[in-house]
Amino acid sequence: ALRLRVREALGAREPADAVRVQGWVRSVRSQKEVLFLHINDGSSLESLQVVADPSLEKRDLTFGSAVEVQGKLVKSPHRMQNMELQAETIRVVGPCDIWAFPLKMKERHPLEYVRQFPHLRCRSNTLGALLRIRSEATAGIHSFFQDNGYVHIHTPIITSNDCEGAGELFQIETSSEAKESAEKTHFFNVPAFLTVSGQLHLEVMAGAFTHVFTFGPTFRAENSQSRRHLAEFYMVEAELSFTKSLQDIMQVMEDLFKTVTSTVLSKCPRDVELFHTYISPAQKSDITHKLFSSSCRISYSEAVEILKQAPQTFTFKPEWGCDLQTEHEKYLVKHCGEVPVFVVNYPYDLKPFYMRDNEDGPQHTVAAVDLLVPGVGELCGGSLREERLPFLESRLQRLGLTDAYQWYLDLRKFGSVPHGGFGMGFERYLQYILGVDNIKDVIPFPRFSHSCLL
Amino acid sequence: ALRLRVREALGAREPADAVRVQGWVRSVRSQKEVLFLHINDGSSLESLQVVADPSLEKRDLTFGSAVEVQGKLVKSPHRMQNMELQAETIRVVGPCDIWAFPLKMKERHPLEYVRQFPHLRCRSNTLGALLRIRSEATAGIHSFFQDNGYVHIHTPIITSNDCEGAGELFQIETSSEAKESAEKTHFFNVPAFLTVSGQLHLEVMAGAFTHVFTFGPTFRAENSQSRRHLAEFYMVEAELSFTKSLQDIMQVMEDLFKTVTSTVLSKCPRDVELFHTYISPAQKSDITHKLFSSSCRISYSEAVEILKQAPQTFTFKPEWGCDLQTEHEKYLVKHCGEVPVFVVNYPYDLKPFYMRDNEDGPQHTVAAVDLLVPGVGELCGGSLREERLPFLESRLQRLGLTDAYQWYLDLRKFGSVPHGGFGMGFERYLQYILGVDNIKDVIPFPRFSHSCLL
Repeated sequence: ALRLRVREALGAREPADAVRVQGWVRSVRSQKEVLFLHINDGSSLESLQVVADPSLEKRDLTFGSAVEVQGKLVKSPHRMQNMELQAETIRVVGPCDIWAFPLKMKERHPLEYVRQFPHLRCRSNTLGALLRIRSEATAGIHSFFQDNGYVHIHTPIITSNDCEGAGELFQIETSSEAKESAEKTHFFNVPAFLTVSGQLHLEVMAGAFTHVFTFGPTFRAENSQSRRHLAEFYMVEAELSFTKSLQDIMQVMEDLFKTVTSTVLSKCPRDVELFHTYISPAQKSDITHKLFSSSCRISYSEAVEILKQAPQTFTFKPEWGCDLQTEHEKYLVKHCGEVPVFVVNYPYDLKPFYMRDNEDGPQHTVAAVDLLVPGVGELCGGSLREERLPFLESRLQRLGLTDAYQWYLDLRKFGSVPHGGFGMGFERYLQYILGVDNIKDVIPFPRFSHSCLL
Repeated sequence: ALRLRVREALGAREPADAVRVQGWVRSVRSQKEVLFLHINDGSSLESLQVVADPSLEKRDLTFGSAVEVQGKLVKSPHRMQNMELQAETIRVVGPCDIWAFPLKMKERHPLEYVRQFPHLRCRSNTLGALLRIRSEATAGIHSFFQDNGYVHIHTPIITSNDCEGAGELFQIETSSEAKESAEKTHFFNVPAFLTVSGQLHLEVMAGAFTHVFTFGPTFRAENSQSRRHLAEFYMVEAELSFTKSLQDIMQVMEDLFKTVTSTVLSKCPRDVELFHTYISPAQKSDITHKLFSSSCRISYSEAVEILKQAPQTFTFKPEWGCDLQTEHEKYLVKHCGEVPVFVVNYPYDLKPFYMRDNEDGPQHTVAAVDLLVPGVGELCGGSLREERLPFLESRLQRLGLTDAYQWYLDLRKFGSVPHGGFGMGFERYLQYILGVDNIKDVIPFPRFSHSCLL
């Protein structure tokens, strides 16, 4: 018999006589004359309808059981589906203890409920759809960059850089060191940390390949229960040499967003539809039609003026030189008409040492850009990097970081070029296009403070 | 002027009048009548020849400097190259301190030498070629699985599983915990480790999507200076449901290898050629012609018999029930004629709890497979997994792991299916196809005991 995935069976053009389908039972409906099953194997949101003689029913043919069905693939009389399978044999490969199984037939379990079962929630419709979308988006990101001549770089996960100041870090020891931590001899000779960004390592590579990207896990040890933060999350980062304009960086952000989103919409329309129907009914038009057809670009200084003139009061008073808070970001996005907002040229003292001085005053602003989007806040952050040796040297000197960053200074001594780049939070991207409120629901195994299941 | 990458300029079909190329100078040769430059921008191994009037020469136009050249792209009179650039203007964007720069013009630096400069070695021909190949192989791996209906899963980097017994682990703490390690309150409430394999998490997903893969960093805290081990390395792992045969697993290994290798050979032939010419002159025919056109399959028991009958003496005496050592693997590969060797059906007690009992005797062998290849040793390892609840329960019971793996037992209670999978070491794959002796030379930023540069 010809082995077909459910997706292939559903999409078949022609009937076929001897077909074998394997998967898990999503529903069983036993009528006097006929037994109906729905079989799902994760290849698509839709299940394949199986029609069988009631004599084929057996006790362990239940919701959740694994089955192998052989029979004839025929045109379905139902208007909602193309093909159905007329079973000749049904074999239960693995039974399911339905009383203990936390998923129930035909129930739409809330995301909070299935989150308790990280080893089983992928078998729910919503997480199944999410993970197929995540997989297609991942492929789309790789294709976008490869098609545009970028070299993919595996930037390191373990790093000895600890001075970038991007919040609290995770430190690494061997498990035996952790046990006898009195005498600290480090495995790597130096303290080692989990990376917070691949940017500095990408800058190394941008000095050889001009266009490079990385797409991997990054880490923050922030003690946060926020619906927008994880301890382990994925970042797409790109770095471009020979660019002097923040506009170039913003253009790549926008192209990346559009290309990957189109890929996802065309590869798994039904999966995306599930989110737009049940999870975020208001989102659909936002994503497929409005996104980046209009966007807004303001400077940080303009943003502060807008906030100061706002009719509402903020918990944090807006002030030039202070970070934009979530409440500020929300207001700015609303002010611009619920479209993506690029905020550019941030105060020099707010931003890390590697950002490029705009020279619009003594250490006044740097060429940085954040992309804020409705519902999620900061989706991307980027900047031009300081490629001028004297500027970088004096800034590192003032920060007492000269010794730690000799290698980074070296990059400005041997054929330095104007360059810049950005990072996009992959989970936030998924939250945004799908309208998922909690970041824990867009990653297979979420890690956050007090939780590391499996 | 039309901005072209070097690769585009070299491959142009037609001359073009106003062209701009940006990159780094790989050679300067000044003659009385004419100035020759070679410009490389990492888009290809080959540099673009620039021909200019000697009046365009300037003091800081040196090896390693970053330049922007405008001029005419014309057919080259040289037989070795298609096009060359007749410069009208040459601008030095970033000079290079050639006395301090560790790379020298037209020198073939040994891999050991450039390894000292992890921030600059990507600008050497060999590492440039390596990283382009690595990038294409990465894309090829994603395509292979996507094209074959596998869902990509980001298996977690941080995990609370510590019982798998795959050597020493790295443990994680927040940097503040590491400082005051007297009172141990864990960020995740439980001890957390860097993953050694995504397999168990992939098995979760194989129970929903049937075909899944992951490709990410894995970690071992082994105190080894071996040319085949790193503390941080990349693994491709795949898991397949509804398979009862080790042969299916071996077939995917072989298909993956062939497809990715063909992709690499067709996408960067010149880069691969560099390795086969300068790094491993004996390899070429092995890879492009012989690989997997013949391979060998023996059982572990046969392997031990072959070793026992070997005319040579081993440091470790071959004995049924003992691990195959490097010297044994080498001998087996030689014995089979320097082709890839699949070794199947290992002793039950040698292998982890999740491998499937072959029932060829009381706990005698499990359905495991290792793929050994010439020069590298173990490239892939896989197995069928124990899908039968009673077998798994009793094994975990004996090992005292029942509580820790309740979730894993759950997978056998709710629609369990026969399944299996494998992992392939990505760096070893690159070592094998390119003939690179030391694993530190096939990863951008190697991490190993006593070393975590940058």
